[in-house]
Amino acid sequence: MGAQLTLDKILERAVDLFPDRELVTKLPDGEMHRYTYGDAYERICQLAGALDELGLEEGARVGVVATNHYRHFELYFGPACSGRSIHMCNMRLPDHHFVHTIEDAGDEVLFVDPWLLEKVEANADELETVERYVVLCGEDELPETDLEPVTDYESLLEGHSTEYGWPDVDEDAEYGMCHTSGTTGLPKGVAYSHRAMYLHSIMCGHVDANGVSERDTVLPVVPMFHANGWGLPYAATFVGAKQVFPTVHTDPEPLARLIDEEEVTFSAAVPTIWLGMAEFLDENPEVDISNIDRLTVGGSAPPESLIRKYDEEYDAPIIQGWGMTETSPLGTLSTLRKEAAELPSDEQYEYRAKAGLPVPGMQTRIVDDDGEEVPADGETMGELQVRSPWVTDGYHDRPEENEAAFTEDGYLRTGDIATRDELGYVDVVDRNKDVIKSGGEWISSVQLENELMAHEAVAEATVVAVEHERWQERPMAVITTSAGADVTGTELEDHLAETFPDWWLPDVYEFVDEIPKTSTGKFDKKRLRERFDIVLEAEQGEEAEP
Amino acid sequence: MGAQLTLDKILERAVDLFPDRELVTKLPDGEMHRYTYGDAYERICQLAGALDELGLEEGARVGVVATNHYRHFELYFGPACSGRSIHMCNMRLPDHHFVHTIEDAGDEVLFVDPWLLEKVEANADELETVERYVVLCGEDELPETDLEPVTDYESLLEGHSTEYGWPDVDEDAEYGMCHTSGTTGLPKGVAYSHRAMYLHSIMCGHVDANGVSERDTVLPVVPMFHANGWGLPYAATFVGAKQVFPTVHTDPEPLARLIDEEEVTFSAAVPTIWLGMAEFLDENPEVDISNIDRLTVGGSAPPESLIRKYDEEYDAPIIQGWGMTETSPLGTLSTLRKEAAELPSDEQYEYRAKAGLPVPGMQTRIVDDDGEEVPADGETMGELQVRSPWVTDGYHDRPEENEAAFTEDGYLRTGDIATRDELGYVDVVDRNKDVIKSGGEWISSVQLENELMAHEAVAEATVVAVEHERWQERPMAVITTSAGADVTGTELEDHLAETFPDWWLPDVYEFVDEIPKTSTGKFDKKRLRERFDIVLEAEQGEEAEP
Repeated sequence: MGAQLTLDKILERAVDLFPDRELVTKLPDGEMHRYTYGDAYERICQLAGALDELGLEEGARVGVVATNHYRHFELYFGPACSGRSIHMCNMRLPDHHFVHTIEDAGDEVLFVDPWLLEKVEANADELETVERYVVLCGEDELPETDLEPVTDYESLLEGHSTEYGWPDVDEDAEYGMCHTSGTTGLPKGVAYSHRAMYLHSIMCGHVDANGVSERDTVLPVVPMFHANGWGLPYAATFVGAKQVFPTVHTDPEPLARLIDEEEVTFSAAVPTIWLGMAEFLDENPEVDISNIDRLTVGGSAPPESLIRKYDEEYDAPIIQGWGMTETSPLGTLSTLRKEAAELPSDEQYEYRAKAGLPVPGMQTRIVDDDGEEVPADGETMGELQVRSPWVTDGYHDRPEENEAAFTEDGYLRTGDIATRDELGYVDVVDRNKDVIKSGGEWISSVQLENELMAHEAVAEATVVAVEHERWQERPMAVITTSAGADVTGTELEDHLAETFPDWWLPDVYEFVDEIPKTSTGKFDKKRLRERFDIVLEAEQGEEAEP
Repeated sequence: MGAQLTLDKILERAVDLFPDRELVTKLPDGEMHRYTYGDAYERICQLAGALDELGLEEGARVGVVATNHYRHFELYFGPACSGRSIHMCNMRLPDHHFVHTIEDAGDEVLFVDPWLLEKVEANADELETVERYVVLCGEDELPETDLEPVTDYESLLEGHSTEYGWPDVDEDAEYGMCHTSGTTGLPKGVAYSHRAMYLHSIMCGHVDANGVSERDTVLPVVPMFHANGWGLPYAATFVGAKQVFPTVHTDPEPLARLIDEEEVTFSAAVPTIWLGMAEFLDENPEVDISNIDRLTVGGSAPPESLIRKYDEEYDAPIIQGWGMTETSPLGTLSTLRKEAAELPSDEQYEYRAKAGLPVPGMQTRIVDDDGEEVPADGETMGELQVRSPWVTDGYHDRPEENEAAFTEDGYLRTGDIATRDELGYVDVVDRNKDVIKSGGEWISSVQLENELMAHEAVAEATVVAVEHERWQERPMAVITTSAGADVTGTELEDHLAETFPDWWLPDVYEFVDEIPKTSTGKFDKKRLRERFDIVLEAEQGEEAEP
C-alpha cells in the first residue's frame, strides 16, 4: 500500500522536509539564479499541467537538449512524475547519431537550451516525431529561430496551477531514457524505471557508497544527459541537499570558483576536469576547494598521482567509480573498506586507484570464456558481469542485441575486462573488444598503453591485437613520439619489460605521425586493426609462453 | 531481470565481499563463540537443507523462541532464503498470548533456546500446529525435556550440504512474522515481505538514517523477536559489519564490558538499558565504551538528561528513534539536520529529545480528526500517519481491523499522537487512546505525567481522561507520593502551571497507594478509567477555555 518506488516520493520528500534549501544555477552570463525546492516544486507542477495541455499521453517522451541548470532540474521531475518520460539527449553526438536518438525515442516535444539551438536547427528537418519545440528561457530571451512551432519555457508554464495531483504511476514504468554513446554502430536506448532510479537514489545516500546527505552541497559537473547525471540530481533531491548547477561554466576555473563560493562538498566529473582544475589551483592558491568532502570520478580511471595530489594539496579526496549508461550508472566505488583503511596511507592508493567495491545492491562477478568465475587474485582477467535492480533489462527496440547482452541468470555482460582482488576490489583493465587474447591468456591493452605513455619520448600510444599463427593474437604498439624525441622499439620493449612479463610485450612497434581517433576523441582501434591487418608467423625456437 | 529485492541478496553480499568478518556470541556460560559470515553461510545452507528434509513447504512458518545469538542469526536467513518464513516469537508475553501467536502463525517447527524451554514446555499441550521441536544446542547439551518429537539443532544440520541453490523467491513473499505486544486484546500478527526488509536494510545504511557501515561493529541488544531486532541483523549483514550477540547477558554490566572488549561502534536498545549502564559506568570508570559512535534508543523516549550524560561523560551519542512492529520498525530518527546541527549545542537537545525526522523512504503526516494536516508549529497535536514500502499492508487474518487501520490513500493510522515542528521533527506525545480531548483541543497525558513525576514529592503519576459535561473530557491526575513526602493537589497544580496553560491543568488529583500496571509494566489506564468512571459538571463562571 502506497509502497510504489516512484520519483514523486523523492520530490515530495524534499519539499516536505527541506522546502527552503537552495538550488543554485550559474547562468551563461555569469549571473546566479537562486531558488528553493519549494519554488521548484511549484514550477514542476506547472510544467506537468503544461504537458497535460499539450495533450501528451501517459508514457509519451519529451526530449531535453540542455546543460545543467534549474529548468533542466524541473524537467527531471515534471514529465516523470506526471506519467511521461524524459529523454536526455546527448548533443555532443555526431548529427546522424543525434537524430537517431530522437527518432528512436520518438520524442514529441523537444526542450532546448538557447545556446544549443544551432545543433537542433541544423537537424530539425529530420526530427519527424517532434511536434513542438520549447526553448529553455523567458519570453524576452527567445532567440530568432526557424524551429516551428516554438515557445519559450516560461510562457509554457505560465497560468498553470502550482499544485498537481501526481497520478499513481507503476514503479516499473519508464521515467527516463538515455542513449549509449555508440562508439560502434548507432547509439542504443536505455530506458530507466521509476523503481530503478528510486533504488539508485537511496543507494547513493548509503554510507558505504556516495553517502549523499542533506548536509551536502552537491555540484554535478557530469552532464545531466549522461546516464542521469550519474543519478546525482535525484539522490540529492531525495536527501534535500543544496544543489549547484554550472550550465556552460564547466571549465576548471569557473568550476573551482563555484566550488569555493557555494561551499560545495560533493562533486562528480570525468578525470580531465580534475586534471585541469589542479593546474588552475596551483596558479591560483587563493581559490580554496577544501570544503570538498569527496569527488567522484568516473568515465575513465584517474592517474594515481592525481588522487595523491588532491589529498595532499587540496584536502579534497577523489573516489573513483565505475558505471555505464546501462547501470543507471553506479556500479562500483573505490571507497576504503576497513582492511584497506587500516593500511599505511601509501598502500591505500593501490585500492583507491581501482574501479572499486560493488555498491550495496549491485552484484558483480568476473568470468572467463567458459562462464566460470576467475580467481580473486587481482591479476586474472575476465568479463565483468553485473546484476542489480538498477541495471537495465535491455536496450530499447533491440531484441537481437538484448539476447546476447544478458546471461541466463540475468547478469548484464558489460563488455569490460576486469580483475578482482582478495578484498573484492574490481579493476577494469580493458574493453572486451580491445583485450588481446594470446594463447588463452589475456593481455590488457590499456595497461600497456599507460606504461608506454609514461615513457618521456612517447606522445601517444595505443595497443591493438594482430593475428598470430600460434598464439591467435599478439599485441602491436602504435606510437607517436614527442616533438624532437627519438626512440626505438627495442628501447620501449626494455621499458615495458620492467613492469610486465615477457609474453605481454608487443611483437611489433609501429611509429606513425598520427593515431586515428573516434568522434569522441578515443583512439580508433577499429580503424587501426583494419589498417594493420597482418598475420605474424610462429617463430622457430619461440618460447612456449604463456 | 535478477532484480528481485530478496534476502538472499543481502546474505550473498556479505559472503561475497566479507567472508572473514566475525559474528561473535557471548554464550550463557560466558564463553565467546566466534565464527565468520563464511562459516555462517555454510550452516545456513545446511539449515535450508534440513528444512527440505523435514518436508516444509514453500511459505511454511517456523517459530523461533530465542535470545540473540549466532544460531538465531542463522534462522534469520535459512527459512527465508529457502522460501519459508521465520516467526519471531515473543516469549515474554503471558502464556495465553504466547500460545495465540504460535497458533495464529501456524508454526510447524519450533526452535527453542535451552534456557527458554520451560516457557514452551508449560504450553506445549496447546501448540497444536507444532509438529517438531528443535532445541538450539548441540547433541550433548540437550536438556531433559518432555517435548515431543525433539531434536538438537546441531544434529538437525548434520550431514546436509554446505551449499544450497536459493530458489527464485518473489520479493513480495513473506520472509517473517512478528506479533504486536497487544496491550489491548490478543497480539496481532505482522507479516514482512522480502522487499520490505531489503529496503529497510539499505535505508538503515543511509547516511541520514542509522548509517550502518561495513566499518561498524553492531551489537543489537534489542531482542531479535522484537520487530526484526529493529532490522539490525539484516542491515549489518547487508554491509558485512561485525556483529556481537549477547544471548542472556543483557544487564548493563556484561553489556558494557562486551561493548568495551569487542569495540562495538553501534548498538540499539530501550532507554532502561542505557539508564542502567550509566550507573554501572559511573562506578566502574575502567570500562570504556567510547568506541561507540552512536546508540539508537527506541520503545520509549529517553530523558534529555540521559542524552546529555552520554555525550559529556562517555562520548557515546544517543539517537532517539520511533517505530512500531507494523513499520519494520524504523520510522523516524532524531539525527541533527544541518539547521539543527548549526545551533549552539545546548539548543540541539531540543531536537535530539524528539522522535525525529522521517528516514528516507518514510512518509509521515500528522492529521486532526477531520484528516487535515495540523500546522508544523511543534505544538498542535494530531495522529501520526505513515506510509512506506516497509510499512505493513495489514494484520494477519484480521480483515475487520485492517479496514480501520489504513486511510484511503494507504497511510497507516499509527494510533500515536504527535506534533511536528518547523524543521520537520516529529515528537510523539501520547497514544491516541490516552490523549485527553478537551473542548476540541488535545492535552498530552504523557507530558503532564512527566512534569508531575519531576516533582520531588511524587513517586508515580498517571493522567487519564474523565468525562466532563461541557468539555467532553478533562484530565485527572492519579498520584502516589514518595516515601515520607506530603503534597497537595493545589501544590501540584502550581507546579504544573509553571509549564502548561491553564486549560491543561488536571481538574482532579487523586492520591492512591498504588497505580495498577499492565503485564508489560505500563500504567493500566484502561483499569483506571473504569475505576474513576465519573462525570464532572460544568461550573458556573467557568472560563471559556480553551
